[in-house]
Amino acid sequence: MFHIAILGFGVIGKGVYEVIKNNRESIAKALGGTGTEETINIKYILDKLDFPDHPLGDRVTHVFEQILMDDSVSVVVETMGGADAAFRFSKAALEAKKSVVTSNKEVVDKYGDVLMRTAAENGVSYLFEASVGGGIPIIHPLKRCFYANQITRIAGILNGTTNFILSKMSEGSMTLKEALAEAQRRGYAEADPRADLEGYDSARKISILASIIFDRYIPFEKVKVIEGITHVKQEDIALADKLGFTIKLLAVAELVGGRAKLLVAPHLVEKCTLLSAVNDVYNAISVTGTAVGEVVFYGQGAGSLPTASAVVNDVIEVLREHPKAKCCAPADDGFLLPPDAFDDKKITLPNGSVYRVL
Amino acid sequence: MFHIAILGFGVIGKGVYEVIKNNRESIAKALGGTGTEETINIKYILDKLDFPDHPLGDRVTHVFEQILMDDSVSVVVETMGGADAAFRFSKAALEAKKSVVTSNKEVVDKYGDVLMRTAAENGVSYLFEASVGGGIPIIHPLKRCFYANQITRIAGILNGTTNFILSKMSEGSMTLKEALAEAQRRGYAEADPRADLEGYDSARKISILASIIFDRYIPFEKVKVIEGITHVKQEDIALADKLGFTIKLLAVAELVGGRAKLLVAPHLVEKCTLLSAVNDVYNAISVTGTAVGEVVFYGQGAGSLPTASAVVNDVIEVLREHPKAKCCAPADDGFLLPPDAFDDKKITLPNGSVYRVL
Repeated sequence: MFHIAILGFGVIGKGVYEVIKNNRESIAKALGGTGTEETINIKYILDKLDFPDHPLGDRVTHVFEQILMDDSVSVVVETMGGADAAFRFSKAALEAKKSVVTSNKEVVDKYGDVLMRTAAENGVSYLFEASVGGGIPIIHPLKRCFYANQITRIAGILNGTTNFILSKMSEGSMTLKEALAEAQRRGYAEADPRADLEGYDSARKISILASIIFDRYIPFEKVKVIEGITHVKQEDIALADKLGFTIKLLAVAELVGGRAKLLVAPHLVEKCTLLSAVNDVYNAISVTGTAVGEVVFYGQGAGSLPTASAVVNDVIEVLREHPKAKCCAPADDGFLLPPDAFDDKKITLPNGSVYRVL
Repeated sequence: MFHIAILGFGVIGKGVYEVIKNNRESIAKALGGTGTEETINIKYILDKLDFPDHPLGDRVTHVFEQILMDDSVSVVVETMGGADAAFRFSKAALEAKKSVVTSNKEVVDKYGDVLMRTAAENGVSYLFEASVGGGIPIIHPLKRCFYANQITRIAGILNGTTNFILSKMSEGSMTLKEALAEAQRRGYAEADPRADLEGYDSARKISILASIIFDRYIPFEKVKVIEGITHVKQEDIALADKLGFTIKLLAVAELVGGRAKLLVAPHLVEKCTLLSAVNDVYNAISVTGTAVGEVVFYGQGAGSLPTASAVVNDVIEVLREHPKAKCCAPADDGFLLPPDAFDDKKITLPNGSVYRVL
């Protein structure tokens, strides 16, 4: 029996509980058991709130040190969101020789380098599959399935909210404002949707993927957010359609002459290609390698159970393999292509709107 | 420096040489080197032919025992094709405590259970990522990225030749016969294309994937090949198009009431879904899990470099991690849903042709 703690019992934290409960057999088998026993025990839940009606209500604590001092807890799941408190707790846990698994892109983006180094120094793991692409296995494959390649480009639909809005606008029935209201009604968009709409959420995620493929720490401030989707007009979508394109918000990390080009912008994507067929809140990541050509990973980029699936998979990876954390040095500025050297291919629509194409 | 041997120096074997040569830096880094040194040395090439003009012409041997007796060779790459000789060589290599990596679906399908057991008994690895989906990472993710799920369905476009033919027919310009001739002209189809056209190649591949997700050895004879694409008419494709569908040859492994339904048949796939956007010789595999929902993996299902990319990745995985081979017992007949209980959803086109839908 392995004991874990969950920091932050919101949508993802509760999903972690559900996934562990509902997949007891597969999890037990993965951990070398027979399939009938409970192999992962959620010993603590750290939250400001109490959850008296939840089956795990008695596991709730408000004192982080209780978790820190319990040597039986080998993995801490951080599903708090936000950067600074999550960072302090994660660092303390790693220093106490507990591995940390997170779904929190802010903390990975802002403090990933420090946390990886802390994990490495303490001989424990720091995994964050769920921080990009929700349930889609993308970080693990990037680390383990392309050894025989140099990855020359990643282009991703990494934000479900904006993809939902563009999908609804493409169907012709809604304006951006109406589609945003619908997304908020369904719980896909936050009350303050700016980070999604203006491309900053996508920038954070591509910076995490870029750090892996380029083996250098690249915080999201180094990604050029050209624009989000706030200026995409319904007329643009209709005109693009006539020319054989769909409009998608893409985050791109590309090697150009040995330097990294990193940007977020709405793009014209040829119809009948895979990325053009990614609708609603789904995400997809196109990876191009020198040997393998283009490979695409597709799935649910958010949601309680898909995201928790990735979190729990990381927990099991830690318990099975104890993967070593790998430090990487920050990218020096010479490695990053300056935006004025981007030289992107662009198409001007008949109404004068200009879009990039891949 | 690690020494390997390649058995069979055809299209894939030569691709393995190219991939190792062209990706020396990434490979060295993956194996803990600095990136400048040669880390994988192809010490032997076993083939009936000589390759006097090839840079590795001096590594060719015609005597398998030479490889077997050289203790410095830790990994044997089997890219021979065919089942029986490949099986004998692979088994002997495993018994000599050398790990084996293969791209050969026939041998995995027919002898995978014996070879996995032999590998496990000898403490070495037997990996076969390249046997399904060419360069697409699918077997590794199935083994490592869905621990927190029960996988309830895999539906794949696993044969590039038939997908190329259906794509050409969909464009409206070619009959099946013409598209087949074009595929043969481009080297996508073999002189005797029956295994592709009649669905047996897809059956072999889905049996390999099914064995992994169901944790039971399932040879391809247990897959019901309802039909391949030989009866798909251009008129069917046009009528399906009007109803909003594309016709794709799918191989399906699905859990139905706790039993496995395994079949290959042409299906109507809704337009604007990802599988419908898979064109030409590309492959895609849709995986549905209890927590993660639907995830799709897409890429080049064949070709020298993509397939070799998967082979070399397996070699590196062996050298880095020495993954343990895992035996699995054959599926008993009670686990396999008999075809007369399949109860598939079907649609009859206006011309009377009947197709399955997922």
